[in-house]
Amino acid sequence: MFKSVTLKDVAAKAGVSYQTVSKVINNKANVSPETEKRIWDAIADLRYTTNYSARSLRRRRSNTIGYTWEPAPPDQSNPILDTFLQSMFRAAEEKDYYLLCFPYHADDKNLLKVYRQLYDTGRVDGFVISRLNYKDPTVPYLLERNMPFVGFGRLDEADKSFPYVDVDGGEGVAQAIAHLVSLGHRKIAALAWPEDSRVGNNRMEGYYQGHAKAGLMPDPRLVSRGEGSSLVGFEATTRLLGLPMEIRPTAVVCMNDVMAIGAMQAVQQAGIQVGRDFGVTGFDDTPTARYLTPPLTSISQPISTIGENLMKRLIEYLETGAYPEPRCELVAPMLEIRESTAGYLPAKE
Amino acid sequence: MFKSVTLKDVAAKAGVSYQTVSKVINNKANVSPETEKRIWDAIADLRYTTNYSARSLRRRRSNTIGYTWEPAPPDQSNPILDTFLQSMFRAAEEKDYYLLCFPYHADDKNLLKVYRQLYDTGRVDGFVISRLNYKDPTVPYLLERNMPFVGFGRLDEADKSFPYVDVDGGEGVAQAIAHLVSLGHRKIAALAWPEDSRVGNNRMEGYYQGHAKAGLMPDPRLVSRGEGSSLVGFEATTRLLGLPMEIRPTAVVCMNDVMAIGAMQAVQQAGIQVGRDFGVTGFDDTPTARYLTPPLTSISQPISTIGENLMKRLIEYLETGAYPEPRCELVAPMLEIRESTAGYLPAKE
Repeated sequence: MFKSVTLKDVAAKAGVSYQTVSKVINNKANVSPETEKRIWDAIADLRYTTNYSARSLRRRRSNTIGYTWEPAPPDQSNPILDTFLQSMFRAAEEKDYYLLCFPYHADDKNLLKVYRQLYDTGRVDGFVISRLNYKDPTVPYLLERNMPFVGFGRLDEADKSFPYVDVDGGEGVAQAIAHLVSLGHRKIAALAWPEDSRVGNNRMEGYYQGHAKAGLMPDPRLVSRGEGSSLVGFEATTRLLGLPMEIRPTAVVCMNDVMAIGAMQAVQQAGIQVGRDFGVTGFDDTPTARYLTPPLTSISQPISTIGENLMKRLIEYLETGAYPEPRCELVAPMLEIRESTAGYLPAKE
Repeated sequence: MFKSVTLKDVAAKAGVSYQTVSKVINNKANVSPETEKRIWDAIADLRYTTNYSARSLRRRRSNTIGYTWEPAPPDQSNPILDTFLQSMFRAAEEKDYYLLCFPYHADDKNLLKVYRQLYDTGRVDGFVISRLNYKDPTVPYLLERNMPFVGFGRLDEADKSFPYVDVDGGEGVAQAIAHLVSLGHRKIAALAWPEDSRVGNNRMEGYYQGHAKAGLMPDPRLVSRGEGSSLVGFEATTRLLGLPMEIRPTAVVCMNDVMAIGAMQAVQQAGIQVGRDFGVTGFDDTPTARYLTPPLTSISQPISTIGENLMKRLIEYLETGAYPEPRCELVAPMLEIRESTAGYLPAKE
């Protein structure tokens, strides 16, 4: 059995104070290169480790966090990017950290290679990762190599294998269902993403839970799945409006605003008035939402809080070797009610 | 008079090859710390400089470019941010460079302090700056301190004091005027920004040049100025529609899409059909533009090209000590024609 080596042992061997060792480890010391080298040598000789990885202890800290993201398709913008980046680097600046942006590679192998290069060359101390889906290859890769990271999102509902901040999308959709039910809607359709979308499934849970809470049983024929584009929203809604009267929906909740835009166009093309005759809700609360005719009811995510909390968590880990508890944090989204769900007059049955 | 010191003199004094010195200067050498130190000492002893600043030669290169930007107001998104950042760090990656993002400070003094800290601590080798306006304090600050940078934008039309890439906004608005004139419009209003906006004035030049080219004289009462918000667009257009028939405009060109959205709402509220009865054009070609009812004719900027060219210019300077010629580059925007200017039927006079 090893005798546990303490910071004091390192300090004694290097002939410096306990505080100096701590400062050098945290890259905050103002000591000569010779002294610094003596301390690192002592750490290596004594095989000093904490729960914080020995590898990170050895290398010089860069006080830099790496982040990459998938570019938005050309006909869409990334509605949260500006706020997300700003909130991250404002939180980072408070602790003297910066954000390094690097290119996204659609090819997993290339992407993981970049993560590794950035970390192994000491360019960054850790990563923020986003757009997590089931079987995301980044998470096991970073975990295995002991690279510090936090996730905006999780792998699945039960997953607690790494620290993350995520939006409870299901809670947002449940709010939309409750709102539509309060207006008198009983047949509410859903425009959902394919079943391999983790975020999409999380949001759809709220569709079922919202119905259950209202004592309603959703008709499976009212759930349509497809990619989150405006065209898919248009076609699916056109199909839903052609259903026999007894099951035809009077409202549709969409898993993003882009699908909702297509849904609104389909409703208008059918000569039905969005809002009074047919309710439409989106998700994301893109800046576009409020400028549509009529303005779109949507679900907004507290992006600033998410970016700030992610960065604080990661930096706390880098500085102390421990993530703040609880390691995983779910934040609630908020329903922004606008005219696309206003003034509904249910037909007498 | 000094005898000019060459790279070969440095190599001879340090006892290494010419190539090794060059690699160390460009931070690409794989040599021992001892060798590297010997080379830097030789550079210092011989006072070796090139046209590239001695200060940069002395410090270790970080292969990192700094960038900050003003956050968009909460009710708007930054429609070009994703594309701009991606194009910059893709171009950077090709040369083994990365982009470091840092927080914007509305207070000039704080902002300039951050520029200085990042550069003086060697965290970044140079900057990309954007949102340039008359009397921008960043430009003289960086020029004076010999910090390498390139601008997305310029200080004024004649300015060539630093390397930039800019969009010829006037050319875009002139295209919009020519398009409206070809449809039969003769009384074309403008929703412009305040007169202290450099970008706004550049765009408005196109309004006057477009009229001149068509042999038309714009009525000064048809030019309305205000901040680029949807509300300002709404109010200004409502006022324009209330003008006596003989000067009332049949179209309006707006200096951004957000104003155009307000203009369209004012036209619709007045019971007039956008497109057939009244033309509206925007600027920026935000993703929102194509989803409006009707879709908005707008002017798109080649953002990917701009980001890529900015980064290539800056890295070439960092690697060679000279900016590529011409130092200043103007790129043309493109008019995207949609239904907000379609099918105009001029009244018989």
